[in-house]
Amino acid sequence: MSATVEATYWVETTDPLERAAEAMAGEQSTGTFVRVERETDELRARFAAQVVSIEEQEPSGRTPLPGANTSDGPMRAALIRLSFPLDNFGPSLPNLQAAVAGNLFEMRPFSSIKLMDLDLPAAFAERYPGPAFGLAGTREAMGRPTGAMIGTIIKPSIGLAPAELAEVVGELVEAGIDFIKDDELQGNGPHSPLAERVAAVMPVLLDYRERTGRMPMYAFNITDDLDTMRRNHDLVVAAGGTCVMACINLVGLAGVEWLRRHSQVAIHGHRTMFGAITRSPQVGIHFRAYQKLARLSGVDHLHTNGLHNKFYESDAEVIAAITDVRTPLLGGNVTVPVLSSGQWAGVAHETYAAVGSTDLLTLAGGGIHGHPDGAAGGVESMRAAWDAAVAGESLAARAARVPSLQHAIDRFG
Amino acid sequence: MSATVEATYWVETTDPLERAAEAMAGEQSTGTFVRVERETDELRARFAAQVVSIEEQEPSGRTPLPGANTSDGPMRAALIRLSFPLDNFGPSLPNLQAAVAGNLFEMRPFSSIKLMDLDLPAAFAERYPGPAFGLAGTREAMGRPTGAMIGTIIKPSIGLAPAELAEVVGELVEAGIDFIKDDELQGNGPHSPLAERVAAVMPVLLDYRERTGRMPMYAFNITDDLDTMRRNHDLVVAAGGTCVMACINLVGLAGVEWLRRHSQVAIHGHRTMFGAITRSPQVGIHFRAYQKLARLSGVDHLHTNGLHNKFYESDAEVIAAITDVRTPLLGGNVTVPVLSSGQWAGVAHETYAAVGSTDLLTLAGGGIHGHPDGAAGGVESMRAAWDAAVAGESLAARAARVPSLQHAIDRFG
Repeated sequence: MSATVEATYWVETTDPLERAAEAMAGEQSTGTFVRVERETDELRARFAAQVVSIEEQEPSGRTPLPGANTSDGPMRAALIRLSFPLDNFGPSLPNLQAAVAGNLFEMRPFSSIKLMDLDLPAAFAERYPGPAFGLAGTREAMGRPTGAMIGTIIKPSIGLAPAELAEVVGELVEAGIDFIKDDELQGNGPHSPLAERVAAVMPVLLDYRERTGRMPMYAFNITDDLDTMRRNHDLVVAAGGTCVMACINLVGLAGVEWLRRHSQVAIHGHRTMFGAITRSPQVGIHFRAYQKLARLSGVDHLHTNGLHNKFYESDAEVIAAITDVRTPLLGGNVTVPVLSSGQWAGVAHETYAAVGSTDLLTLAGGGIHGHPDGAAGGVESMRAAWDAAVAGESLAARAARVPSLQHAIDRFG
Repeated sequence: MSATVEATYWVETTDPLERAAEAMAGEQSTGTFVRVERETDELRARFAAQVVSIEEQEPSGRTPLPGANTSDGPMRAALIRLSFPLDNFGPSLPNLQAAVAGNLFEMRPFSSIKLMDLDLPAAFAERYPGPAFGLAGTREAMGRPTGAMIGTIIKPSIGLAPAELAEVVGELVEAGIDFIKDDELQGNGPHSPLAERVAAVMPVLLDYRERTGRMPMYAFNITDDLDTMRRNHDLVVAAGGTCVMACINLVGLAGVEWLRRHSQVAIHGHRTMFGAITRSPQVGIHFRAYQKLARLSGVDHLHTNGLHNKFYESDAEVIAAITDVRTPLLGGNVTVPVLSSGQWAGVAHETYAAVGSTDLLTLAGGGIHGHPDGAAGGVESMRAAWDAAVAGESLAARAARVPSLQHAIDRFG
């Protein structure tokens, strides 16, 4: 019995569920619309995908996807699990996706069809080493061995000249921050080229390390055409940087994997544009499957959104996403979940209660830059809140002793 | 006035349309959830995205996307056009996507939000040369100066041993085919590694060229991790191949662009997994925008689906897709639309009537492999039908003179 990949799908269809599942398996392995010469029973037995299970579910009641055939009876929903012989594609992440996703999303029998999860055999871990630094390497690089890692995004997102950026970074490092990142909108445009940002920021960070022995991580956004991205990486490393940010969906999972093989520093994986493939509950790829691909591709940090974020995801979805990223995967290094959007000190207790760990990188943009006492107050309030959560002390009790926390509550609460 | 990128979106929202459009522009340029220090009016004036136009449309009546705020009034729909300063990101395709797509799809005010089209300034053509071979190079390489280019996909999709594959290819080339491609499911698995496929297929093609002076294009699927993909390319070129196939969404647009800079042969762009980002009419990226990114990334051929295909797209959508790919883009070489799925001789007249050109690569899988007279009958019937369409002769009239065409009608009609 050779190794297999198992994939789980959410589907809605008016076809009989067994027939729909067989159609999925056929389309994604040996099938074509007419049976052809040389398509022997032996060939099918060896290479065909198999239906592992069909668990019927409650239909969603959503308007069917366009082009869905809805004429064959009442709408039914199911979680369908298929098994694919690894030999069909080998432990290759791109070719895996041809099989488990491929043309499935375009099939007519389905009013909904979404890839929910993947179970991959050990062969993938042999080929893909995963994160090179992960949680331990990140904590070490930023000098924050315990407690939540507190970070921020440069704001305004774009438009700061390199000299202004250096000023902002100076304030943030003096405030005791652990991590700073470029906004994903700040790439390598003519107004503020990466080379100038690196030249402006790194002396500030290195000076701080000289004085304190600690240097926050700065995730420079190196996203670009791949050869340029690689040169961008080299530029950051040459200047003494400890982290690069890649927008996973803009350079592709394959681009991230390629960067991983070259990278000498931690890769901060931003998932911008992820909504395009995941927000619809009817089609695309669920974060649970996606994050496995991203982690095998080698991201050391992966965005999960945070509680009470300004985007569409519910708190339950965010907690599930954080939990998924923290779940061990084929023995690789631990990828750090990155919580962002709408974050401030007041979210710490609820997050800690749900996740039960401080092995998180929590990013506050406005919550730090917009704190009434400035960035120092923002960072202090975030750290105080997380410390209180871990110590079992209420936010109010800690705020009574830490004015910056009270000021955060007054402003953002 | 510096250059701008314009992007068009389909949205549905219960927010006032003007406010929704401003929220999109803010999220994707200078905004954060609280206004921060240094976010001056001058900065906003220079870097903010602008709302160009709002054209109200009929709402779709579809169930809103999850997390959509629908509390602010009746649902309204619109095409919203935004303008982004090119200076924000420069002519970089990955960083462009951060701005025009980025986090937009996750925004709460929207019950639907889909990127429909992009208008890019000439700076992109300066950085991205587009297809290296295109229509002219493809016709020259396959020795088919005029008429529809007739091709097929190897079937069964997977499972043929290299020696069997060589047999199939032998039949196809003798049948007079112009183009053959690996199935997208046939990557580089242990059962039939690319190196063995190349070693089996190329002698057949080269022998045919030796005898006839013509060699069909064979698009070997080189999709894989990027360094492996590049080695795969080199292997095909070293063996005398004239085309490589890359699954665009599996290696990423950035991976295609990287391949383009290295490739010595035509790149056959397969769009498998495209349904994940495009089938939902409520979220994701429309083919009209996507194909511009793919063409600038350098694909010489691009799949568009074909009329009467087995997937969800309507004939009107397919014709629009073919037309989009044939529409000039910033002065670059012409990318060849690739029509596939459910294709056979009987689709030629309708396709020609709608497109008005034979500058198409039309792929029949079962329609050639499953033809009653074998592959030779399949190819002959396809070419006869296309010739008749161009000559203004009906399918029936031509079939009366060409038995293989009549047999195709009897079998597939």
